[in-house]
Amino acid sequence: MTTEPAPSPELTPPASPFAPGNNWRGLGLRQQVARLLVVRASGHASDGQRRYPRWELTNADLKRLLEGGVGGVILLGGSAQELALRCSQLQSWAGQPLLLCADVEEGVGQRFEGASWLVPPLAIGRLLQPQPPGPQGAAAAPSTGPRAGATAPAESFPAARAEPGAQCLDPEPQERPPAAAAEDLAERYGRCTGRQARLLGLNWVLGPVCDVNNNPANPVINVRAWGEDPATASTLAAAFLRGAQAEGVLCCAKHFPGHGDTSSDSHLELPRLPHSRARLEAVELPPFRAAIAAGVASVMTAHLLLEALDGERPATLSPAVLDGLLRRDLGFEGLIVTDALVMEAITAHHGPGEAALLAFKAGADLILMPADADAAIDALVAAIDSGALPRQRLEASLERRERALAAVGPAGGQPPAPSPENDPAWGGLSGDPNSELVSPAEAALARELVDLSLEINGPALWQAPSSPPQALPPGPGLNLIRLDSSLACPFLPAMAPALVRPAGAGYQSCLIDSRSPSPWSGDPQAPLALERLPGGPVLLQLFVRGNPFRGSAGGEEPWPAVVSQLLAKGRLAALAVYGSPYLWESLRPLLPDSLPAAYCPGQMPLAQALLLDRLGLAAAALEGGFTD
Amino acid sequence: MTTEPAPSPELTPPASPFAPGNNWRGLGLRQQVARLLVVRASGHASDGQRRYPRWELTNADLKRLLEGGVGGVILLGGSAQELALRCSQLQSWAGQPLLLCADVEEGVGQRFEGASWLVPPLAIGRLLQPQPPGPQGAAAAPSTGPRAGATAPAESFPAARAEPGAQCLDPEPQERPPAAAAEDLAERYGRCTGRQARLLGLNWVLGPVCDVNNNPANPVINVRAWGEDPATASTLAAAFLRGAQAEGVLCCAKHFPGHGDTSSDSHLELPRLPHSRARLEAVELPPFRAAIAAGVASVMTAHLLLEALDGERPATLSPAVLDGLLRRDLGFEGLIVTDALVMEAITAHHGPGEAALLAFKAGADLILMPADADAAIDALVAAIDSGALPRQRLEASLERRERALAAVGPAGGQPPAPSPENDPAWGGLSGDPNSELVSPAEAALARELVDLSLEINGPALWQAPSSPPQALPPGPGLNLIRLDSSLACPFLPAMAPALVRPAGAGYQSCLIDSRSPSPWSGDPQAPLALERLPGGPVLLQLFVRGNPFRGSAGGEEPWPAVVSQLLAKGRLAALAVYGSPYLWESLRPLLPDSLPAAYCPGQMPLAQALLLDRLGLAAAALEGGFTD
Repeated sequence: MTTEPAPSPELTPPASPFAPGNNWRGLGLRQQVARLLVVRASGHASDGQRRYPRWELTNADLKRLLEGGVGGVILLGGSAQELALRCSQLQSWAGQPLLLCADVEEGVGQRFEGASWLVPPLAIGRLLQPQPPGPQGAAAAPSTGPRAGATAPAESFPAARAEPGAQCLDPEPQERPPAAAAEDLAERYGRCTGRQARLLGLNWVLGPVCDVNNNPANPVINVRAWGEDPATASTLAAAFLRGAQAEGVLCCAKHFPGHGDTSSDSHLELPRLPHSRARLEAVELPPFRAAIAAGVASVMTAHLLLEALDGERPATLSPAVLDGLLRRDLGFEGLIVTDALVMEAITAHHGPGEAALLAFKAGADLILMPADADAAIDALVAAIDSGALPRQRLEASLERRERALAAVGPAGGQPPAPSPENDPAWGGLSGDPNSELVSPAEAALARELVDLSLEINGPALWQAPSSPPQALPPGPGLNLIRLDSSLACPFLPAMAPALVRPAGAGYQSCLIDSRSPSPWSGDPQAPLALERLPGGPVLLQLFVRGNPFRGSAGGEEPWPAVVSQLLAKGRLAALAVYGSPYLWESLRPLLPDSLPAAYCPGQMPLAQALLLDRLGLAAAALEGGFTD
Repeated sequence: MTTEPAPSPELTPPASPFAPGNNWRGLGLRQQVARLLVVRASGHASDGQRRYPRWELTNADLKRLLEGGVGGVILLGGSAQELALRCSQLQSWAGQPLLLCADVEEGVGQRFEGASWLVPPLAIGRLLQPQPPGPQGAAAAPSTGPRAGATAPAESFPAARAEPGAQCLDPEPQERPPAAAAEDLAERYGRCTGRQARLLGLNWVLGPVCDVNNNPANPVINVRAWGEDPATASTLAAAFLRGAQAEGVLCCAKHFPGHGDTSSDSHLELPRLPHSRARLEAVELPPFRAAIAAGVASVMTAHLLLEALDGERPATLSPAVLDGLLRRDLGFEGLIVTDALVMEAITAHHGPGEAALLAFKAGADLILMPADADAAIDALVAAIDSGALPRQRLEASLERRERALAAVGPAGGQPPAPSPENDPAWGGLSGDPNSELVSPAEAALARELVDLSLEINGPALWQAPSSPPQALPPGPGLNLIRLDSSLACPFLPAMAPALVRPAGAGYQSCLIDSRSPSPWSGDPQAPLALERLPGGPVLLQLFVRGNPFRGSAGGEEPWPAVVSQLLAKGRLAALAVYGSPYLWESLRPLLPDSLPAAYCPGQMPLAQALLLDRLGLAAAALEGGFTD
C-alpha cells in the first residue's frame, strides 16, 4: 500500500542570510557531490579535545572539506554553549547553508550539557502500553483513555499502572495520563528538543527512533524506541516529530525499515532479520508510515540485512529497500540518509568509496559519516562522469536537500547567556523567552516525565508523616552502583544524587563497571563476593540500558541472584534501577512489599534525585571538595 | 631583614572601559566593603552544571552580590571557551572592574580544557635539585650550569640526571638544561599561563606556590611546589611570576608563610607547625622574599598555626603573621588575600562573619570564599560603624586593590575561535597570533617540559631500530591503573593514551580507585588479589600525587610490595608512574635494569603519550565507538 506523504504545514522558513534557490546548479560536479556528504565533528573547539579522534575530523580537515562544498556535519561532544559556538564556526567555514545535526534523541541535554535531558522515549511508550507487563498486569484497571486517532494504539493503557500495594499507600498516587495526554507529552518532548536544537545552531534532529523495541535483548535500540508495539511507536514518534519540526528543525525517522528486533549491534557486526514482508508490514513499517504521513523531512537507513527483501545487501545499500520499499511503496519524497557508513556492518564488507556509491545507487540522498570523505566524493564523481550513475539522480538529491533546507533555514547559533532569574535552568537574556535555553515549561516537562515514569515497589516509608523520611537503616553501609563505565560518565558527576545522598547517610560508594576488579565469586547462588566490598546494609543502584558498543543490554549479569543473595543475608536495604524496564521487571517478583525499591527509565541526575526522593532518601547538604 | 619590594616594570595597563581612579570613594560603606570579597563560581553557564553546588554560588546569588558591589570571583570548572563566556558574563553583571581568578598553577589547561596543561612545577624544580635523589645520585655528573644570580640554588643540578643505564642506551639522550635554562623554562611557563589566562578573561593567576615541599608526605602541596629546597623554589617561583605578570595578569604567592612541611590537609583540619623563626627564615620565607622582590602583586595566607609566631591563631587570622611578618618584616605592600575561608581549618573554629573580620583585622585586604558573603559584609560593616575597625584600614585595602587593577585592567574575554591551521592546538582568528589560545611555542613548551622531566629505567627496547618498538609481551594482558577517582577524571578521557595504547596491544584495562571493589588480598607479602583481575603480563600504571581532600599523598598503599609480587611471579611487563617522584623513587630500587619503566611528574594525556612512546608502546590507530 502506498501512502502519499502529507505536506508538513508547520515547517515555516526563517529568514536566511543565503539565497537558497537552486544555487547548486552553478557549481562544478565535485562540489555538487560534496553537498550530499555529512561528516563527523566534535562539538569541542580544539582538536586536542576530541573524545573520539578516530571518527572526528581535525579542524584542518573539516575546514578543507567545508570549503570544498561538503554540506553537512554531525556533532557530538561539548556543552550546549560550546555547541553554539561550534555551529557558528562551522557555518562560517562553509560557503553555503549547512545541515548541522546531532543524535539528540533524549533531549538536547542528552548530548550537550546545559540543555534539557529528558527520560528516554520508551518511558512515554510504556504509559501507552496495551498490557502492563509483569506481576501488576492482572490488577490493571480497564481502559479509560480516549482513542487517539488513526494511529493510536489498539488498546489504551490503564489509568493507573502502579502496583496495588504502593498505590494504596502512596499519599500522592501518580495518575497515569490518558492516551491523548501521552501523545501530548511526546509532542512537547519534540518541541523542547527542536527549540533548543535550533537555538544552539542545529537545524536537523536525528530522531525520532521509529524502531519497535519488541526484543528486550536489543543492545542498541532498547529505551531509545518510542514503543514496544507498532501502534504506540507510531503514535508517539509522529507526535514527537510534529512537535520538533514545528520549531523549525528537520527530523529523521530511523532506522529504516526497523531495527527493533535485533539482538546484535550493527556498530559491531551486520545483523540479519528473517522476517517476511507481511511481518514487516504488521510490525516494523507502521511507525515509518506514520512518520511519513506526519511530514517527516528525512529517513535514516539501517545497516541490517532483511532476507525477505534483499538477501545480498543491507538495507542501507539495497535498491529494493530504498528505491523500492521506501520511495515507491511508502511514497517517501523527502531525504533518505544512510546511517553512519563507518560502522563495522558496512566497513567489514565495502571500501569507503564503494560503500558511498552503493548507498547512493540504492536511493540514498545523503551519505552520513563516510569512512573517507574524499574517497566517497571521488567514487561518486567518477560514477557520474562515466555515466554509471545518471546525473539526474544527483540532481534529484540536491533538489531534495535544497527543499529541506529552504523549510528551516541554515544552521548556526549564538550561546545563550545564563539568566540568574531562572534557576536552576539556563535562562535567556532579560525578558526574551525565545533566547532562554531551558524555558520554565521545559524544566517542568523534564520533571513531569520523570515523575510519570517512576515505578515504586511498596510500601513506601514516606507515608509516616510524624517521622522524617528514612528509607535506609543507619550507616555505615554500602552504596553499590553498577554502570557501564565510570570514566567520563555523563550521568554520574562527582556530586550526583546517587553518590551524594547515600554518602550523607553513611553509605560508602562502590562502583562496578567493565574495568573494575571482579566483584564476582563464581558461585551462581551467591554471585557477589561480599568480602571484597564494604560491609553493612546495601543500597543497590543499577544503571543498565542497551548502549551501543557494549555488545549487550546488560541482561547477562546475575542481578536477580544478587538480589536474592542480599535478601537472604538480610542486607538489602533498598534497590534502584535506572534505565532498562526489563531488568526491573526481572527483579520485581523477588522483592518483598516492604523493600524500598524504585525504577526510572532515565539515568540522569534529575532522575536519581526524584527516585531517591521517593525512596525517602532526601537531598542532604551537598558535600564535596571545592578546589586546591 | 626587610626587603623593599621592587616595582614591577612589566605590568603595563591595557586600555580599560572603566575609569579606574579612586572611584570607590563615592560609594557607600557596604559597597566599599563588598569590593574586598572574592566569591566562588562555577565556570559553567548554568546552575545545573555546577560540580560543587555546596561551594559554588547560584547565578541568582552571583548576580545579586556583584550588583551589590562584590569585587572578585574565583572560577573552577568548564572548558576554556566556557570560561571566556563566563568571565564576560560576570563582568557584565558587575558595575565595576572585577578581579577574576583561578587556581591555574599548572597551566590554564589544568583547570579549563583546551588551554595548555603543563607538567607540575616540581618537574622543573627537580631539574635544579642540588643532589639528585635515589640510586642514580652516586653517578651524577658534576655541576655544569652557571649560577643564576642572587636567588639561584646553592648548587647547580648535574647536567644529566638520567640513570646511567638508560642514558647510554637511549639513542636520543635528554640533555638536562643548565640552571639558567631551568629558570627560563619557569618564566616561559609563567608567560604561557599569564597570556592564556588573560586571553580568556582572567586577570589574576593564583600562583606561584611558594611553599618548599620538603615533606614528601605532604598531601596538599607536593608537586605543586616549585622546589624541594628554598633556593630552587625561590628562583623558579620568581621566574614564573615575572613571566606571568609580564603578560598582564596579577600573580599570587602562596601559602604564606609556607605550607610545604605539613603532613595534614588544611582543607580538612588545621595543621600546626613547631618551627622557630630562625627555621622559617632559613626554609619557608626565602621564596616569598624572592616573589616580593620580583614584584608579586598579591600574597595568599595559609591556614596553619605557627607556634613560634602566634600560638592562638592560624596565619590567616594572625596580626603577628600578616601585619607583623609579611607587611612589616618582609615589607610587602601589595594585596594580602586569605586562602578560602570555607576550609575546615577555619570554619571548625569561627563563624563566617567572625572569620572575615578576624582576617581583615589581622591584615588581609581581600577575603576569599567567605563561608557566607552576606555575613562577611555585615560583620565588616558593623565593625567599621562601631569604630572597632578603623575606616583608614578599609581605605588602605581599597587603595591597594585599585592600584593592582589599574596595572592589569578589568577582567573579561571572548572565546578564541579554533584555527584549523594550527593543529592540534586551538589557534586564533586568521593571522592574529595574539588571539591564539595555544600558540605553537606554547604547544612546544608543553611537550618540552614533559620530555625533560621524563625519567626512564633502562634498558629501553627502542634501541633496536630493525624491529618495531615493542615494550609489552603479546596480550592478552592486564593494564592495571591506579588513580584517585575514575569519575570525571580529567586526565583519563575514554581515549586517553594510558587506556587506548595498551588496549591496542591486547591488554585489558582494570582501574583501582577509592570506589572499586577491593583488589587487596590482606597478605602483606602478596597484597594484590590477582584472582580478581584479568590474567597475563601486567602493565602497571600508577597515577599518584598529593591531592586535596584525599587525606594523603598516596604513600600508604603497598605498591612496592605489589611490584615485588609481580616480579616474583614473572608477570610485571612494564611500569609507569605519573605524578609523585617519591613513589617512583621508592619503586626504582626494586626494578631490574631490563624492566621497561618510566616516570613523569605530569598525569595529563600528553604525559601519557610521551612516556608510553619511551616505553615503546607507540600510538596505534585510536579505537573506540563514535555515537549511537
